[in-house]
Amino acid sequence: MTKLCGNAIVGQSGGPTAAINSSLAGVYSAAKASDAIGTVLGMVNGLEGFLAERIVDLGETLRTDADVDLLRRTPAAYLGSCRLKLPKWEVDETLYQEAFALFEKYDIRYFFYIGGNDSMDTVLKLSSYAEKIGSKISFIGVPKTIDNDLLATDHTPGFGSAAKYIATTVREIAEDCRAYFLNSVTVIEIMGRNAGWLTAASALARNGEGDSPDLIYLPECPFSFDRYLADLKAVFQRKKNIVVAVSEGVCTEDGQYVCESVASGKVDAFGHKYLGGTASVLADYAAQKLSCKTRGIELNIPQRCAGHFLSKTDADEAFENGKAAVGFALDGETGVTITYQRVSNEPYKIEFKPVLVSTIANGEKTIPMEWISKGFNDVTEEFIRYAKPLIQGELPPIFEDGLPKHLVLPRECF
Amino acid sequence: MTKLCGNAIVGQSGGPTAAINSSLAGVYSAAKASDAIGTVLGMVNGLEGFLAERIVDLGETLRTDADVDLLRRTPAAYLGSCRLKLPKWEVDETLYQEAFALFEKYDIRYFFYIGGNDSMDTVLKLSSYAEKIGSKISFIGVPKTIDNDLLATDHTPGFGSAAKYIATTVREIAEDCRAYFLNSVTVIEIMGRNAGWLTAASALARNGEGDSPDLIYLPECPFSFDRYLADLKAVFQRKKNIVVAVSEGVCTEDGQYVCESVASGKVDAFGHKYLGGTASVLADYAAQKLSCKTRGIELNIPQRCAGHFLSKTDADEAFENGKAAVGFALDGETGVTITYQRVSNEPYKIEFKPVLVSTIANGEKTIPMEWISKGFNDVTEEFIRYAKPLIQGELPPIFEDGLPKHLVLPRECF
Repeated sequence: MTKLCGNAIVGQSGGPTAAINSSLAGVYSAAKASDAIGTVLGMVNGLEGFLAERIVDLGETLRTDADVDLLRRTPAAYLGSCRLKLPKWEVDETLYQEAFALFEKYDIRYFFYIGGNDSMDTVLKLSSYAEKIGSKISFIGVPKTIDNDLLATDHTPGFGSAAKYIATTVREIAEDCRAYFLNSVTVIEIMGRNAGWLTAASALARNGEGDSPDLIYLPECPFSFDRYLADLKAVFQRKKNIVVAVSEGVCTEDGQYVCESVASGKVDAFGHKYLGGTASVLADYAAQKLSCKTRGIELNIPQRCAGHFLSKTDADEAFENGKAAVGFALDGETGVTITYQRVSNEPYKIEFKPVLVSTIANGEKTIPMEWISKGFNDVTEEFIRYAKPLIQGELPPIFEDGLPKHLVLPRECF
Repeated sequence: MTKLCGNAIVGQSGGPTAAINSSLAGVYSAAKASDAIGTVLGMVNGLEGFLAERIVDLGETLRTDADVDLLRRTPAAYLGSCRLKLPKWEVDETLYQEAFALFEKYDIRYFFYIGGNDSMDTVLKLSSYAEKIGSKISFIGVPKTIDNDLLATDHTPGFGSAAKYIATTVREIAEDCRAYFLNSVTVIEIMGRNAGWLTAASALARNGEGDSPDLIYLPECPFSFDRYLADLKAVFQRKKNIVVAVSEGVCTEDGQYVCESVASGKVDAFGHKYLGGTASVLADYAAQKLSCKTRGIELNIPQRCAGHFLSKTDADEAFENGKAAVGFALDGETGVTITYQRVSNEPYKIEFKPVLVSTIANGEKTIPMEWISKGFNDVTEEFIRYAKPLIQGELPPIFEDGLPKHLVLPRECF
């Protein structure tokens, strides 16, 4: 029998996704199954909640296999999230001392943090502090983000489900737009500040030549209102109803956000501007210049929390990735993030590989320029080949009284 | 064998829904099965397209049972729609003469029009003109509208699917909002100019006491910014994350739309103002007054075209209603709309009943005031009991390559 090494703790951080709970379910399942791990604890609201000792024993809230299965089909973050940015420990050790005192108090030997590039910064800092003070705790990053913008991984858990939802919704909106026999421009705004992966996924909505979306604008390329107008006129030569997919973060040549004129200017803890309104700006511009019916649609939060429409590929990979994270931790890894490596595209197959968290933290992967069409208004077949395997299969909800059932952490835990 | 009486023609009109093609499938199936009916034709883009002789033989585009099944799972309007408002024939007979000449040319004996209250106006005018000129053509209205605002029917085809999608999406957004440990107000704007049925359906998202949505504002009641602020403060006494559901059409006591300050002022063919921005106005107001995180979300077009998430009850009823319409036409009815009559709630059971189209055309059914809470910020249990049966069951998409497959009328037909 393996020697008991201590307890494990897992937290969720950053923006919620529809697959982040699958990763949690994977970590929990593997940790619970290991003889080396005692209790599996959960941080409520990530490291921020942990520092306030808001901790749950996951063995008590996930009592049955059915609970774990329901957790996988529950969107957003079961344990709650946070956006705590740790200071450098070289500058201020206070929070680190508090955290490591709590790790000792709860006999934590394995620390799993599910999050995006900002959260990987937390894993990096904690693991380097552990090295400095000679702590034996393993710090493992489990990636998640719908944005698909993490370095060193083929794609990110959460992206496939968001891409499937976006492609489906864009296809449905395109059907709706075709209903009327008049010229129209419908602009769909999709999440993505600097990386256009989600907006590019709208291209999967096409089922044949000439299908919508007709134009795709990504933040990787400078946006030009003149070129946009010329693009619209060109599409109107062949069809009446134009559907445009645009990333919230598109900027003009001079670096100004297209939405800037209507942006609220709010700033979140990581210094990102709150964006919104790009669709309205482009719809209004088309209405002014072309005197046609226009509509701006912001897909908004449902993009990241549509648990009713999961990609099975995505959900299964997220679950296995969580399990793999525990395996690598037990093998002695620390300061790593578990990435996806695509070993084959046909048939599609990935492997899990730990990479130093420093290669991921704070970095950002954008769409290669070779995958963007020369006119800056579409993606190439290479992108389609890359993205298509990620949206395959469904993990349907468990319905209760006509609606998807969710597993909810009791309110008193928060 | 029944005597062949002539051909049938069917059209779709008004805003698309996720169930309108189920009604079309029902009309087509029953008409095709009848010995009294020859060819089943479709108007492309409703009466407007019919007048331009854009007509398809549905027997050629719906070749197999699989096509009909796929049609039922395809959102928006397969035949395309229009918003043609006929003049009174007492004022101008031109369009009527053109239409009846075409009816004769195509040997039309049965005319089915699937639409909302504006479309029922078309059925009313055509049938009264037929009576005037002694035409034997049957004019039958088949209701559809996600708005659920038609008189004389228990509910409308399309409402149940939209309600299921809205309740699910609101539940998912509520999960997302709970992720952060800070005070927040999320305002979700739902369709509905004068009738709040869709917004009220958000109440179905609750699974227990204290669940979101926390406040529901309907166009049936005057909206007060002061009361809104007091409501928010009261909810903050018991929870951190507030979710507000609001109808696009809410007005203040003096009859001004809440969104008016940001409305674009566009006007559509029926004189309705284009509404939008209510969620932003309420979110911004909360941010100003309460200094908390806020977000406005407009559910927009996906509410009416989410074919990937149909209520089986709704889709089945729409199909049966289409079939019933043909049955009543063959029985000699004309100038009627086929309504739903709820004969029992437990177990839930409806019957189809033709009512004079004049009782439905141009009218509007709003939520009874007894079903709205005294504080004008919620609905009562009576509404829940009414709406719950309508969202039961699922009619999942047929997936192809990871996405819902749709049946699309060849582009050359448009």
